[in-house]
Amino acid sequence: MSMEIKIMKNILDRNQNKADEVRKSLAEKNVLMVNIISSPGAGKTTLLEQTCRELSGEYRIGIIEGDITTDRDARRLQKYDIPIVVINTEGGCHLDSHSISKVLGSFDLDNLDILFVENVGNLVCPSQFELGENFKLALVSTAEGDDKPAKYPMLFREARAVMLNKIDLLPYTNFNLDAFRSDLANINPRIPLFPASCTTGDGLAEWFRWIRIQTI
Amino acid sequence: MSMEIKIMKNILDRNQNKADEVRKSLAEKNVLMVNIISSPGAGKTTLLEQTCRELSGEYRIGIIEGDITTDRDARRLQKYDIPIVVINTEGGCHLDSHSISKVLGSFDLDNLDILFVENVGNLVCPSQFELGENFKLALVSTAEGDDKPAKYPMLFREARAVMLNKIDLLPYTNFNLDAFRSDLANINPRIPLFPASCTTGDGLAEWFRWIRIQTI
Repeated sequence: MSMEIKIMKNILDRNQNKADEVRKSLAEKNVLMVNIISSPGAGKTTLLEQTCRELSGEYRIGIIEGDITTDRDARRLQKYDIPIVVINTEGGCHLDSHSISKVLGSFDLDNLDILFVENVGNLVCPSQFELGENFKLALVSTAEGDDKPAKYPMLFREARAVMLNKIDLLPYTNFNLDAFRSDLANINPRIPLFPASCTTGDGLAEWFRWIRIQTI
Repeated sequence: MSMEIKIMKNILDRNQNKADEVRKSLAEKNVLMVNIISSPGAGKTTLLEQTCRELSGEYRIGIIEGDITTDRDARRLQKYDIPIVVINTEGGCHLDSHSISKVLGSFDLDNLDILFVENVGNLVCPSQFELGENFKLALVSTAEGDDKPAKYPMLFREARAVMLNKIDLLPYTNFNLDAFRSDLANINPRIPLFPASCTTGDGLAEWFRWIRIQTI
């Protein structure tokens, strides 16, 4: 068992070193990198669609799409005429900094302001691997239940902001917003929480406002 | 890179050997083991609540609750007065056969018919680790979108049945049942699909009927 933990530590150390390199490269070019992490189907791609629609006139946006297989999410985003690179992990449960480093050269970093990374749909492993991002956004949907911060604390500890998506489904679920807020505050007090619906657009103005502040 | 793959293969081989031992032990006692895998919040615990309510008079049921941290799910199931063991993975993204093997002695296998395992909420890693189960149930909810079989094919290839949960939310989502069925059929033709709502109970009769057949 100690053997496995040691190997894991080596992998994480190497990942951290490469993440630091990526972060330095992006800082030199003044590019903000946002690592979006959620369960499968919580709405990462729909959030990116809305964000591109709102901000792509204002900022030069690029996207890295992490997916186990297929380019379905990337194809949904093609209409915004922005650079998109797909990383297929072929079974891998998370992106790592080495895969990010490899594709960074595909972007013209001199002409980029924000690089969004859509991680593999997984609430566990992606939160353990730094990519070189400026911050992580934890995205969770009302349909998943209010117990996610308590049950998957690492992501909510690591994230700098939380979006609670699918608030349009609230009336049809037993999601308890007070319980959610309370569990979240226990793990990460004062973290910004954006309740929103990426389908209807409700609540997204606060997210856009917050992203604008991060680019200053 | 080849190094990492080799280590991974060793871990999987050791896991497979232990899974075979577990499967043999359970077969000797005529216990059916069902490994339930889904994203966080797709409804595994609610399915188990409904299943215990319906079947615990008919079968001697036991449950292994896999969770990263907390015993929240186990506490929801306590009211059925059945043996429940919690495995906290402390950050681990899946259960493995070694952890199952360790807790098997906590059950009186001579007085057990069905052992349900609720895996860690994760659509990726749990499908790579056999536990010694008779079969995997893939659980997915309409709120997650219809693209999950295409985007996370391994689970849907490995599973022997699929439950599509939260059909009560169908009218409020853009979930396309035909697209879901078609993608699923491409990956695993003829796999039984149970559309259901574990909250309202709609559609669960088919699942109960199917589970009864598996115990014969």
